[in-house]
Parts: sequence; C-alpha cells; structure tokens
Amino acid sequence: MKKLLLLFLLVPCIGFCQNQDAVFIKKMSDDILINGKAYEWLHHLTKKIGNRLTASSPFYKAIDWGKATLQVAGADNVILQECTIPHWVRGNNDEVAVTYFNSKNQNIQLHAIALGNSLAGKVKAAVICLNNFEELEKRKNEIKGKIVFFNYAFNQTYVETSTAYGDAGKYRYTGASRAAKYGAVGCLVRSLSGSTDNLPHTGAMKYNDSFPKIPAVALGLQDADKLCKMCSNNKVVVAMSTHGKFLKDTTAYNVIGELKGNENADELITIGGHLDSWDVGEGAHDDGAGIVQTMEVLRVLKAMNYHPKHTIRFVLFANEENGLRGGVKYADEAIAKKEKHLFALETDGGGFTPRGFSFKMSDEQLKKVQSWLSLLQPYGTHKLEAGGGGADIGPLAGDILKTPIAELLPDSQRYFDIHHTNNDVFETVNRRELLLGAVNMAALIYLIDKYGL
Amino acid sequence: MKKLLLLFLLVPCIGFCQNQDAVFIKKMSDDILINGKAYEWLHHLTKKIGNRLTASSPFYKAIDWGKATLQVAGADNVILQECTIPHWVRGNNDEVAVTYFNSKNQNIQLHAIALGNSLAGKVKAAVICLNNFEELEKRKNEIKGKIVFFNYAFNQTYVETSTAYGDAGKYRYTGASRAAKYGAVGCLVRSLSGSTDNLPHTGAMKYNDSFPKIPAVALGLQDADKLCKMCSNNKVVVAMSTHGKFLKDTTAYNVIGELKGNENADELITIGGHLDSWDVGEGAHDDGAGIVQTMEVLRVLKAMNYHPKHTIRFVLFANEENGLRGGVKYADEAIAKKEKHLFALETDGGGFTPRGFSFKMSDEQLKKVQSWLSLLQPYGTHKLEAGGGGADIGPLAGDILKTPIAELLPDSQRYFDIHHTNNDVFETVNRRELLLGAVNMAALIYLIDKYGL
Repeated sequence: MKKLLLLFLLVPCIGFCQNQDAVFIKKMSDDILINGKAYEWLHHLTKKIGNRLTASSPFYKAIDWGKATLQVAGADNVILQECTIPHWVRGNNDEVAVTYFNSKNQNIQLHAIALGNSLAGKVKAAVICLNNFEELEKRKNEIKGKIVFFNYAFNQTYVETSTAYGDAGKYRYTGASRAAKYGAVGCLVRSLSGSTDNLPHTGAMKYNDSFPKIPAVALGLQDADKLCKMCSNNKVVVAMSTHGKFLKDTTAYNVIGELKGNENADELITIGGHLDSWDVGEGAHDDGAGIVQTMEVLRVLKAMNYHPKHTIRFVLFANEENGLRGGVKYADEAIAKKEKHLFALETDGGGFTPRGFSFKMSDEQLKKVQSWLSLLQPYGTHKLEAGGGGADIGPLAGDILKTPIAELLPDSQRYFDIHHTNNDVFETVNRRELLLGAVNMAALIYLIDKYGL
Repeated sequence: MKKLLLLFLLVPCIGFCQNQDAVFIKKMSDDILINGKAYEWLHHLTKKIGNRLTASSPFYKAIDWGKATLQVAGADNVILQECTIPHWVRGNNDEVAVTYFNSKNQNIQLHAIALGNSLAGKVKAAVICLNNFEELEKRKNEIKGKIVFFNYAFNQTYVETSTAYGDAGKYRYTGASRAAKYGAVGCLVRSLSGSTDNLPHTGAMKYNDSFPKIPAVALGLQDADKLCKMCSNNKVVVAMSTHGKFLKDTTAYNVIGELKGNENADELITIGGHLDSWDVGEGAHDDGAGIVQTMEVLRVLKAMNYHPKHTIRFVLFANEENGLRGGVKYADEAIAKKEKHLFALETDGGGFTPRGFSFKMSDEQLKKVQSWLSLLQPYGTHKLEAGGGGADIGPLAGDILKTPIAELLPDSQRYFDIHHTNNDVFETVNRRELLLGAVNMAALIYLIDKYGL
C-alpha cells in the first residue's frame, strides 16, 4: 500500500520534471539554432588560423584564440594547463615523391602523403603488393629490399564507417615496422577511406624501435587501385622520398574554460574536443567542429542563465593526433590532485548530423541515460549505446579514476571521405548539422548535471 | 491450452523468420554498398543529361535513358505511360533583372530567379517589405502600384527543415496573387531556405485567375536581408523583368519498369521518384537521387534472384515539379483499370543519409511495419512514423484507391540549402548516403512484399 502511494506521488512529479526538462532543452535548441556562434567560430578557426599541427605556429595561435573565445563564450575562468608535446614536422615542401616505372619505363606521379610521425627516407625499389598481414607472413621471404604496399581496403559493407576505419587502421599504424621486420625498405599504405576521389589521407603511424624506421606514405585510393593492378602485371619500381623528422619536445597547453558548480563545485563534468589537427586542409571536421561545439554548449548554458550543480569544464585538448599528450596530462593531473570526475564527453567524429551518443559506463548508469531518450529524440538522437569514449578522455576512464565517459555520434557516412586530407575544410561543414550536434551535447550535459549518474 | 501450444509453435518460427529476413537484408545491403550502380547512374543523369524541366529537350533524353536503364537494371518489361504535360519555359537568358535604387541612386543587382509557372513582366516600382500575410491584410491600402516583398523567414527552430519548408511554402506558391489582389504590380519572395549563401531558389507558384498575373521572383537570402534593411531606411525602387510563359501542353511519359509477381501478380507495389527537375543545377538530389535509388532497388532484387509475390513497379514519374501530371495520370489509370495497389513508396527528399520512413496508412498497418524496426535499424532507420506520403503517389492514396503510401526520410538538414538552385549538383551527393537510402528502401519493399500489410 505504501509502495502504491509512493508511486502515486511520484508519477505526476516524473511527468512534470520531464516536461520541465523538455521545455528547457527546447529553449536551448532554439537559442543555438538561431543565435549559435559555433559556425562563425569555426570559420575563424579554419580560415584565419587554418590547420594546426601540434607545435606548429598556427597551433599556438589556436591556443590564444581558444582562450579568448572561451572567455567570450562565458567561462567563469580559463586555465592553461601546461603539457609537454611532441614536435613532428613533415619537412620540405616537396615532401613525398612516389613514382612508378611501368614496362615502358614511364614515370608517373602518384597521389601520396607521408604518414604522421614517419621519418625521412629516400628509396627506389621493386614493390610487392599485399592485401593484408596474413599475406605478409606467408610471403615474408620475398620482402627483403622491397617496398611493401599494403592495399587493405576499407570494408564498404560496414554501415558505420568508423568500424571500417577501426578495422583497417592497423595497416597505417603498424604496417611500416611489420614490413621492416622482414627487410622492407619502404612502406605504402592504401588510404583509410572509402571515398570516390584520389586524395591521400595522412594520420598517425608508430615505429617499433626493434626494426629500421623506413619511410611510410599513404596513397590515394584510385592510385592504390592503379598500382595494385600494375603490380600484378609488371615488375613495378617505386621511388619515394619523405622528409619527416622529430624536433625536440616542447610545451603547449590544454585550454580549459570553467563554469563553477553551485552545489557540488568539486565534482567535475568535462566536455571537449582537440585543438590540434593534421597539417592538411583546415581541420574543420577533425576536430574544429568538436572545439566550437564545446564552446557552443558553454555559450548556451550562459545564455540560459543556467547555474550548474557541478563544475563543468570545457576543454580544448592539445595534441590528440600525434601523441595524445593533452588527454594524458589532463588525467594525470586529475589523479595527482585527487579530483572527482562525474562524467566526461568528447566530440571528435566530425560536425555531421547527430545520431546519438556512445557510452563507457556501468549498465546501471547507461540505463539511467537511456531513460532520457525521449528528451533527446526530437533533436536527432536515437542511439544511446554502450561502447564509446573518445581518445582524449580515455585516460580519465582508466583504472584509477574510472570516470564514465561518452562521445557524440555524428552520422559517419561522409567523415572518412575527407578525414586527414586537404578536403577537410570549412565548406564541407553544414551550419545546422554542426549546431544540432551542440544541441544534443548541451541537453546531455544538462541532464547529467541535474540528475547525476 | 491450445493457444499456448500455438504460441509455442509460433515463437521459434518468428525468431527464425526474423533471422532469415535479417540475413537476406544484410545480403542486399552488402551488394548495394559494394556493387551498387546508383551513384554511376546519377553521374550520367546529372552530367550527361543535366537539369530536365518537364517538356524540355533534356527531359525527353532522360525518358529514353530511364527506359534503357530500367532494362539494364533488370526489369521484366518497361512500359511508357503517356500523359499530357505542361510546357512552361523561363524565356530569355536575361531572365530576371532585379535592381534597387538607394538614396544615392545606386543600381545594384540582386540575386534572383523567376518562380516556376510565373509569367513575363517588366515593372519598376517602390517596394513594400512584409513579413507575412497578416501584415499584407493590415496594410492592404498601401499595396497598389507597388512591388510586394514577402520576407517570411525559414523558421530555424524547427529541427526538421521540411517543417520550415511547409510553413513558408505558401508565400512562394500563393504570394503573387494575394499581393495582386490589392493592386501589387510585382512580387518578390524570400527564398525557401535556411542556407548561409545567397543563391535564389526557384520552385512552383500558382496564379489565382481572379487577379492580374504579376511577375514573381525569389531572392537569395543575403539579398533579401539587404533589401529588407533598405526598405526600412529608404524609399526603395525595384526594377524587375521576367520572361516566363506557357507553351501548348504536350505529351510525355511515366517510365515504368515491372518485376512480375509470382503469387499475386495482379496486386501491385509501386516504388518511384520523379524524373523531371527545375531548370537549374542538375536536379541531383531533387530528384535524381530518388530515380537512381528506385532503379537500385530493382537491380539488387534481381541480383539476389528474388522473385516477388506481388508485381513491383519501379516508376520514374513525369512532371512532379510544375504540375504533378505524371502522378495524377498514374492514379487515374489505376482507377480506370481497377488495379489493386497494395502499397506505394516515394523517394523525393534528397539522397542524404537515411533516417527512416513516414507512412500514410491505418494504425494497424503502421503497427505491423513498426514491428520490423529491428530489421531496418542496422541501416540507419529509426523513424517509422505516421504522416508521410509523397506528391507523386498522393493520388493513389485518394478516396477511391486508398493505397497505403510512404516516403523515405533522408536526413533533412542539408536539403533546403541546395533545393531548386544551381547548387543541386552531383558533387553534393555522397555515394554511401545515396546507396544506404536504397538499402532501406529495398528492405522495406522486401518485407511488404513478403508479409503484406
């Protein structure tokens, strides 16, 4: 009987609260879609600053701009959190020259770009085309003195392109050293993309210190197909020359805007993206979009005159692309200072139309979040699923802090067409898609701040 | 007890059937994402044929191409269904000249385009800027001899842009005659878009025969804002000249590919888009995408060696944009021949990433369709909602045939940025988004063919 009474008392409250939340979220959505600044901010970041490889001069400009813009967006205070960063440079303008000599000894330029973190090298050698690591192992005796070309294709049958990226990523990241182990002198990798064009895609690779550090480049997809075909018919020779090198580690900052909590100020909610990009295009989707969406959430909470219970931190992480030093530093300091982290949200999947969020948290916490689905659905969210996280906030979710984390899930179809290429420019970002991502992020942050996890 | 037994017998079957369906749909999806031809077909339609206003020369080329391509895609037979079509032409190249004279008597060209179906006219007059029809009624005594400028803005707070389009559409469609009723000599309409650029958007208008048929044009959004601002400060004069006219009605065809049913061959399922477009851009999203997705569904069913129970018709409708004569003819003939129509599906919302379908059918039928959600979800569908239909198949759902109808719901954020403009070109269509739309359509058609409604 008591239970029934309690239920009776609760039901109208639940209805009322949900309705109150729905009204507040709609108000935020309207404000973002009409007054949102994310698109203008992205225009500045991409067109006035441009791409911003960690430790490059525009990267430092982006830090100054990020600090100033977080202040404009309404942060109570902005902190620069110092961290040591790697300083990789691509080198000379004439960075990569890949040519092949066919039966008529023609010399044809291929569309290629050195992989991030790869080192300088100049080689000319026969090419062996391999579809995967299994073939490498089978043919390991044929590798010596050759350039290995991993032509592992993006699997188009995965509906989520991020699955195809995850599947093919090991060839870019570890391929060079795996080939060098058997005496390869250079490594070509099919770009991690399923696009219809011929642009090469850069991205991080890592050498295994046990083997020679051979030059490593990515090929555009059409040229990868062409080269693969040539390899099957002719003896193909490729000349490649790269100029990458590491300068001494240097110093940069995570830029952190805070909105102070008025109940549990020492419990932290983090929301962020990464400020660095590769040295191609303008880093518009990756991750300019995440940066300006993060600041948009701050702007709208201030515009709503919302006073959060918990302290919310809006973090522009340094150095996601080629080191993750920003994310690691953020977690290290959290551990050292014994900070309490309630939740962290990352957005680093492009500024495309939002479809939901992916979470790494307990089943019970996820169930609680899923009970909010009807509040988020009007804004495009339909997925509230287990699995995700995000590179920069990954360290927060480690064994010590075990922070529940999540990432925004924008539609993934277009992302890997432009990812890490010269096509990742402002013009490929749609204003409403970008802003709707911020709407969903603001709603989730609001609900977690209000109801906890 | 009997009931329980029946349930016992049914449950494994339901599980098994769903699994069988899931396997079949995945097979179709894999085939479409790898071997799909829709993107190549769209390239031909947009780049080799181009935009194809009803009754124009490229429109007839598109009919020939559509017939041939339906045959290539595997139709058992292709029928040309004759229908009478309107023949509107925009006229001279120098189609629209809108200028305003500010206080310094400067003459500045505005980005404008005559509305479809509007007639020739040359006027120069003072402009009155109105936000909506309510203002028109209030200020009806000030209208005489002026050019009325309806500056009704796309409502950005609607998350679905199609809602904003529906909301603002009346100004384009009826604005000119409503202004002419009070003596206006010309009509300017703010383009039906929420884009960030200045491209004018054409589209159908209709005169009310009771009032003078004044020239009617759409303005680009930036110029609409500019003109509106000028109107509030200065006495603004606009000179506009349009050249539209109707030639005699002529003849064209709905192009219909059939896949014969092997159980209920006389019961029909229709799937289609419209072959005509406006005379701008390339009609890539509107509705080249719908045309090639329709043909893709045919191709994949044949590739799967699927023999439908019902006869499936793949229809390339003539003349959706400025008359709907194709859709009306299709329904008229269905009524005359007493055809049985089980279901019709239209795709005319752009080739963007799919989000589901909207249905006009009984609650019971909708419930049945919604029970298939888990089969469609892996491909992006999350909405199976009441409401939709589609212009061309609308007449099938009329009082006589009462056919259950539906439309594909692609993501709507980008559509009205390019709709009816020179930007509606092949390059704005993403291959995977286009193909995924076809995957969801193929799955829905398969399920309805197999289980009925």
